[in-house]
Amino acid sequence: MENSILDLINNHRSIRNFKHQSLSDEEVKTLVTAAKKASTSTFSQQYSIISVTDQEKLKEIDKITGNTHWMLSSGHYFVMVADQYRNLKIAERAGADPYILKTADKLLASVFDAGIATENLVLAAESMGMGATIMGSILNDSNKMIGLLDLPKLTFPLLGIAVGYPETIPEIKPRMPETLQHFTNGYQLDDQIGNWLPIYDDQMAKYYASRSTNSRQENFSNHIVSELSRNRKLRADLLENIVSQGFDVDGISK
Amino acid sequence: MENSILDLINNHRSIRNFKHQSLSDEEVKTLVTAAKKASTSTFSQQYSIISVTDQEKLKEIDKITGNTHWMLSSGHYFVMVADQYRNLKIAERAGADPYILKTADKLLASVFDAGIATENLVLAAESMGMGATIMGSILNDSNKMIGLLDLPKLTFPLLGIAVGYPETIPEIKPRMPETLQHFTNGYQLDDQIGNWLPIYDDQMAKYYASRSTNSRQENFSNHIVSELSRNRKLRADLLENIVSQGFDVDGISK
Repeated sequence: MENSILDLINNHRSIRNFKHQSLSDEEVKTLVTAAKKASTSTFSQQYSIISVTDQEKLKEIDKITGNTHWMLSSGHYFVMVADQYRNLKIAERAGADPYILKTADKLLASVFDAGIATENLVLAAESMGMGATIMGSILNDSNKMIGLLDLPKLTFPLLGIAVGYPETIPEIKPRMPETLQHFTNGYQLDDQIGNWLPIYDDQMAKYYASRSTNSRQENFSNHIVSELSRNRKLRADLLENIVSQGFDVDGISK
Repeated sequence: MENSILDLINNHRSIRNFKHQSLSDEEVKTLVTAAKKASTSTFSQQYSIISVTDQEKLKEIDKITGNTHWMLSSGHYFVMVADQYRNLKIAERAGADPYILKTADKLLASVFDAGIATENLVLAAESMGMGATIMGSILNDSNKMIGLLDLPKLTFPLLGIAVGYPETIPEIKPRMPETLQHFTNGYQLDDQIGNWLPIYDDQMAKYYASRSTNSRQENFSNHIVSELSRNRKLRADLLENIVSQGFDVDGISK
């Protein structure tokens, strides 16, 4: 099956090399509008979007996310924020008990909302000839992000999105075979992994070896194993920071 | 700005009334492929998709999600699953320490992955003339969902997606004004809410009163307040069930 939307979705690649061209206010508004049209859990619209245009703040975010610098040349930078604070204000105005907003369930709903809206924003940008990279690496120092963006209680920074017009367009990264990721009526990986993982590892080895930039010897299994060896202190404060922001996720015994 | 993708995104509504028409295998494959093309955190592809076609299991999910029955007439039902189990198997095959996979950070990465892929799947369906509703209500009994889908450790059910050809198409639900949800360089709700929330409440009151089905007296503030009064026991086992699945999110003091 083919149509222009499937084409767009199926040709996605993350863009990390941008033309030096800032997005216009109208372009930013179009992207934010698209994000806001996404489904939202219990229609609670429990996330916010922060545009970061201040160069000093962008440099701080670049430090937090690994000093890669490419994000500084993007055309616009968004941060998606889990947000139960707005609903807390609504509760306060109505004199209602806000307890539910602090639960793990509502935090998760905020993460769903933000993730779903993020993809709308990315696809909207791609439909306008731009590209984007979603950056979970802002969580390398969530506490600093909270300070940098003046985030109140019951909010939490989740994802950065660097958007802009691409200078170069990389190859599409092959995803794993469907048989390893899509099951029917129950989880059935164990029957599949022995046969299919080696096939995918070969495919990824060819991709990594032949790609035009940053080519290297690697396959999917190696990639996952190297991710496992990262510094355990990185993001070890994540739950502590979530709790500091007022969410009750610090103990199941409560 | 206009293009066919922005049109699609901006005309989204959740569909809860489906024609009795099952999706073909090719349609399902097209949707799964679109989901898999989405960005994935650290390229770890840490989610899985389970198609539920067994009528008995669908009836169980209908019970869990509130006995609304409309999901039973959808053309296909997907469940998005946070999945670090596959990467655990890769770690085991390589003799690597899987500790990192159990962290809150990796659980969150799984939720990002699943949320982003969910929106690709929904938009792909809409581009093919179908509609969908994303159902967080599967978390009403996450433990039962785990049993029903044979989910192994380091996996967790997140969202159901009912997809099908729409029998009727509801009105678009107005989202809150941008000024309440999009900020620049820092969080700035407090200056905006007093002026803009009443305007949005009026807009939503008109929407709820005039919509073609399920019209009622309600505005956005009322809606949030009624959400706050729900039974506290509902989903109170969420964190406990996440921990039972092997994720280390049961205490910040560890």
